[in-house]
Amino acid sequence: MRVEYEITCGKHQDIGNLSEEIAREQTVEMPLAALPETIRREIVGRVEATDLIPGSWRRFRVRIAYPVEITAYQIPQFLNILFGNISLKNFIRIQDVEFPPSFISRFQGPKFGLEGVREKLGVNGRPLAATALKPMGRSPEELAALAGAFALGGGDLIKDDHGLADHAFCPFRERVRQCREALDRAAQKTGKKTGYFPNVIGSHAQILEQAEFAASQGADGVLLAPFLTGLDTLREVSETFGLACMTHPAYTGIHFHDPAHGVRPAFLLGSLFRLCGADLSVFPNSGGRFGFTRRECGEIQDALLRPWGPLRPAWPVPAGGMSLESIPEMAGQYGHNAVYLIGGALLHPAEQLAAATKQFMRTLETHFPAAASGGGMLEPGT
Amino acid sequence: MRVEYEITCGKHQDIGNLSEEIAREQTVEMPLAALPETIRREIVGRVEATDLIPGSWRRFRVRIAYPVEITAYQIPQFLNILFGNISLKNFIRIQDVEFPPSFISRFQGPKFGLEGVREKLGVNGRPLAATALKPMGRSPEELAALAGAFALGGGDLIKDDHGLADHAFCPFRERVRQCREALDRAAQKTGKKTGYFPNVIGSHAQILEQAEFAASQGADGVLLAPFLTGLDTLREVSETFGLACMTHPAYTGIHFHDPAHGVRPAFLLGSLFRLCGADLSVFPNSGGRFGFTRRECGEIQDALLRPWGPLRPAWPVPAGGMSLESIPEMAGQYGHNAVYLIGGALLHPAEQLAAATKQFMRTLETHFPAAASGGGMLEPGT
Repeated sequence: MRVEYEITCGKHQDIGNLSEEIAREQTVEMPLAALPETIRREIVGRVEATDLIPGSWRRFRVRIAYPVEITAYQIPQFLNILFGNISLKNFIRIQDVEFPPSFISRFQGPKFGLEGVREKLGVNGRPLAATALKPMGRSPEELAALAGAFALGGGDLIKDDHGLADHAFCPFRERVRQCREALDRAAQKTGKKTGYFPNVIGSHAQILEQAEFAASQGADGVLLAPFLTGLDTLREVSETFGLACMTHPAYTGIHFHDPAHGVRPAFLLGSLFRLCGADLSVFPNSGGRFGFTRRECGEIQDALLRPWGPLRPAWPVPAGGMSLESIPEMAGQYGHNAVYLIGGALLHPAEQLAAATKQFMRTLETHFPAAASGGGMLEPGT
Repeated sequence: MRVEYEITCGKHQDIGNLSEEIAREQTVEMPLAALPETIRREIVGRVEATDLIPGSWRRFRVRIAYPVEITAYQIPQFLNILFGNISLKNFIRIQDVEFPPSFISRFQGPKFGLEGVREKLGVNGRPLAATALKPMGRSPEELAALAGAFALGGGDLIKDDHGLADHAFCPFRERVRQCREALDRAAQKTGKKTGYFPNVIGSHAQILEQAEFAASQGADGVLLAPFLTGLDTLREVSETFGLACMTHPAYTGIHFHDPAHGVRPAFLLGSLFRLCGADLSVFPNSGGRFGFTRRECGEIQDALLRPWGPLRPAWPVPAGGMSLESIPEMAGQYGHNAVYLIGGALLHPAEQLAAATKQFMRTLETHFPAAASGGGMLEPGT
């Protein structure tokens, strides 16, 4: 397993020594002199490259190879080797990881992926139109009314806002039941399916109970924030239920605040979430309320969609302050293999949601005309 | 529930607006104008203070009150409200949280705490002398030999290195069984107990299995890294087994790299881990291999030990590059209610571990003479 770092080296530091320190810190946590030869050879990371980044002042691209066995082929220990102790140091950023097939093969990755979610929703050749049920504080009835209006407008996919938990003022089961019923009623009128992804959050037992209930009610997937629930919970939910998994980036921002320390967004929200079972990965689009650049978003998109061994491709879900006005630019950047998630801007005012959704679908149609005839768009007038 | 932030305000930003944005982002994620009056009043955070930090240039101490109900009284949703979306913004640091009794009362906190761990180990009036079994790559036999030597030297507590997982080359059960046997044999010779805390890591099911096995073998506790396993797993392990929980800070460093963004160490490694059940919290001591300041370490110590409603106090475990030479300074800073954890420096060379441990205990004795007579020190000559 090869980990690629970007390291900013202090004036009085030597990049070779620093890299060797990392290779030890992430494995044996002892000076080499204290180690028997076999452990030095078979356990300690091996520094393979320390290249100055052209044009930079003491920023280096470092590559260290680790024996894959030390990950114990599981996610928490992988995170440990990746960034456990060195997260407590400074100016170290994880750029990417090259996994050997023996590691990848232990993971299923996206259970449905790009094609599987298209099949679930019956949409081909165009992006998926999605919204978020919000705000926290609305009752199950009110959220179900929003879900129904979005479905009547012809939208493809609804996720809960990630702030919706199993609240006393909006219990999970009641919300899921009512929203699913509203979507069924709408589907009877329109003949078109609208997918629903409720948010699962709580203790491990609560998350499994919620996912099981969602599946029993015919939900198509769940929304889950891996850095709130524990990353391995994503893998478990993905493997256990017949539910597509949409990941939310809540709490991941601590990795990205300083580009000189942490983990590159494309590896975390792209490759790693995909490996752990994300069928769809929500991330903050450039130009919205958060600070990702267009380039970073493109890298996330690529990490989700690129061919990667046996793992299915996953959906990019650029979000965070999008509106109907964002669609032309999103169409240019993301094309048809993406979920266009418009939340607050679509929901306000609530009584115009069905009309706004129709406008959403018409705008998509103008950008993806080929899909309009056979790709799951509503007939005019419905 | 009141959250206290430190916010660095840009030149063209207004701290009032910025604070209101946070209060919305962490709750409704919508403009106020789009909200009914009840949600504005009952769900959205209320900005209570925005005070310029004296002597700073646009750094503000901000306090926002949130209705505690929105946490759903559970850890993942609490993390979500605390820092979910705003982790993706910049220059926001969580300083502290004032929890209402209705939240605290849902949590047990440290199951054993300061006094309970003293009782388990039979040590009073002085710090605990601890070491870490390492490095990764050693066999169960080799690690058990180290454990036995440390016990024969009179040490109080052994934890696994946090890099030890359920590896093919050192399976968890074999390691626990052999280490426990070695400690029993040593105790028969010395008459003194030495506690053992194996490291639990893996899927949720694996962690519970490991903890259960550890308890069945008479382990006194477990080591667990909450930001690898998911923070709520700490709470569950603490509540489920009769095991003391020692937390490891692996992967928490992403919160601390930039003091202008993230979470203050004392809140995360102190208060929050304690709330979730940490009986002992390992953190990087100042002067070691990591960059915490003496002041930050003092704040962690205080967060673990201070009176806090019904929650028991927990042990500070300053670590990360400590040696026998560090003891005088540690004694001055931490006194007797702390675990002095010396890892690599004590283990090298391995064949002198028993002697080095005796030296460790004698050094403690000189600093805490009152405990030497009745506080669990070995008699001279054992």
